[in-house]
Amino acid sequence: MKLEVEPLRLVSSHPFQIARGTRAEFEMFIFHLTFEGTIGLGEAAPQSYYGESPDTVREAVDEIGGMLDGDPDQLLASLNEAGGELRETLADHTSVRAALDMALWDLRGKLEGKPCYELLGAEPSNTPLTSFTIGIDKREVIDRKVDAAAPYKILKVKVGVPGDMEIIDRVIARSGKKVRVDANEGWDLEMAIGKTRDLFERGVELCEQPISHEDEEGLRELKRVSPLEIILDESIINPGDAEEKSDQGHGINIKLMKCGGISPAVDLIAEARRYELKVMLGCMVETSIAVTAAAQLSPLVDYADLDGNLLLADDPFEGVKVIDGKLVLPSGPGLGVTRK
Amino acid sequence: MKLEVEPLRLVSSHPFQIARGTRAEFEMFIFHLTFEGTIGLGEAAPQSYYGESPDTVREAVDEIGGMLDGDPDQLLASLNEAGGELRETLADHTSVRAALDMALWDLRGKLEGKPCYELLGAEPSNTPLTSFTIGIDKREVIDRKVDAAAPYKILKVKVGVPGDMEIIDRVIARSGKKVRVDANEGWDLEMAIGKTRDLFERGVELCEQPISHEDEEGLRELKRVSPLEIILDESIINPGDAEEKSDQGHGINIKLMKCGGISPAVDLIAEARRYELKVMLGCMVETSIAVTAAAQLSPLVDYADLDGNLLLADDPFEGVKVIDGKLVLPSGPGLGVTRK
Repeated sequence: MKLEVEPLRLVSSHPFQIARGTRAEFEMFIFHLTFEGTIGLGEAAPQSYYGESPDTVREAVDEIGGMLDGDPDQLLASLNEAGGELRETLADHTSVRAALDMALWDLRGKLEGKPCYELLGAEPSNTPLTSFTIGIDKREVIDRKVDAAAPYKILKVKVGVPGDMEIIDRVIARSGKKVRVDANEGWDLEMAIGKTRDLFERGVELCEQPISHEDEEGLRELKRVSPLEIILDESIINPGDAEEKSDQGHGINIKLMKCGGISPAVDLIAEARRYELKVMLGCMVETSIAVTAAAQLSPLVDYADLDGNLLLADDPFEGVKVIDGKLVLPSGPGLGVTRK
Repeated sequence: MKLEVEPLRLVSSHPFQIARGTRAEFEMFIFHLTFEGTIGLGEAAPQSYYGESPDTVREAVDEIGGMLDGDPDQLLASLNEAGGELRETLADHTSVRAALDMALWDLRGKLEGKPCYELLGAEPSNTPLTSFTIGIDKREVIDRKVDAAAPYKILKVKVGVPGDMEIIDRVIARSGKKVRVDANEGWDLEMAIGKTRDLFERGVELCEQPISHEDEEGLRELKRVSPLEIILDESIINPGDAEEKSDQGHGINIKLMKCGGISPAVDLIAEARRYELKVMLGCMVETSIAVTAAAQLSPLVDYADLDGNLLLADDPFEGVKVIDGKLVLPSGPGLGVTRK
């Protein structure tokens, strides 16, 4: 199998502020994996929070050059089975694993002439609505963003900074829509207890990662007392985490760049169901390749937050669409993604 | 904990014919499980196909009289964990396990003041449409049944008898609705290969258990060649079966009376997701107690066939409703079922 990696540098429509900082430019890597004349597409969007960078992606790609012999099923095994060569080599490179894994699913689908959702046992008519993210910003900018989010039926507001409840009130009043919040570990337990109660009274649907993933006792206590649903995000990386942390939240947020692709995401979904946890599918700022890969799994989950491509000023690819707020999967084989 | 068992004998609105025979009268047992003044409701609907009868239910109930000490969590463990006393004693009495398990979930929910779907991590707005079953019958009766099924958006037609394709054509032409079929093991491999192709061409959505669960090689071959989705029903009883038979169909039909209640159903759903199988939730002819218990899980699955209560002439209970063809869960704690 031949791998070519294409670096991309893309800007977002608006600067993108969360509790941990601001970004306007994003670097991702498009993987083109060729097997017997068919090309599978994947994408790595490395996240510094999870210990990756454009440099670590480049290093990892150099390292795996000699490990790509075999058919898609063999490489999926090497990438995802315990002790597999690719899995061991890429242990700390989850975005690279994600890129390879989705390229291999794209290949599998294209070789069989079937969309990935069909290979995954996911019913395409059951896709959920997706939320659209409103970053932290000045009031006037928030207002403009809320208005620009007209096509989306659910708004996700980044909180965890001073003045966040005022932002929430403003978004609710202006949009009249269902609102979810993401604190990105921005509170401590005491604040979170008060905030989740206040948010619940305002009709907010759920809160992602209110406090640090390191404060496991705090998360357990919060799950016991919060009237608002708590979705773990930073707490959940690999399969196994849902089981281990099932008493720390009501649900988990799965992102391909955190867990390493479609295959481990399937395992996490199964694990969440086993431990009676809700499931959200999220993403980073990514092109339509990675967002469409996640969307292939979306009929299997409760909540989708798949707007990473919508935040880009100029996405070079197209795949999943949002129609009346709902994810609509492309019908083409594999991921069904094409270059614009 | 105190258990009282109330026998019920109910008739269906129409005689109910499938490939294996006809029934018009059904015997079920309502379980009233009292813990600290709170009553949990369960139901056993024994199926001769799975080796149970009203007599085996009575015998099993007599046998477990001394095993019901403890709180709901302790009894759920005794009922569902490997080596548990109730589980061992009731190994061959799945409908009795199902009745106890759902009564314990009802109790858990009532004691915590939460609906079961919340305890299960299931999002109530994500319930699927349910199909409504049209049994095998004379043409004029089929026509009347199709007309009477106006409130339902998906029809499930029992096939596997001579003349079944004619019935399908008739139902499709008269209803204009999405149609699923259930052959209840009524074909052999050769017939099934032809029938699934013909059904696919007619736009039928899926076929349940086309051939005997004992013909495992036939099912494997059919999965390889059928353009129509194959859902395993009689093949799938306990957790473990989805993994073992994942190459024999595209999905599985889970019924509480087959697997032994909500708890093993959760395990089967997780297992199906792990092995990339679709999931249907089905039922027997049951009152609203057992059908509502299954419906609590329905946001987690792809297809619902939860019409067992709708086929009864006079269901003494009410719980889940069907509105515009979609399951609507009751908001009350536990199962949310009340006596009419």
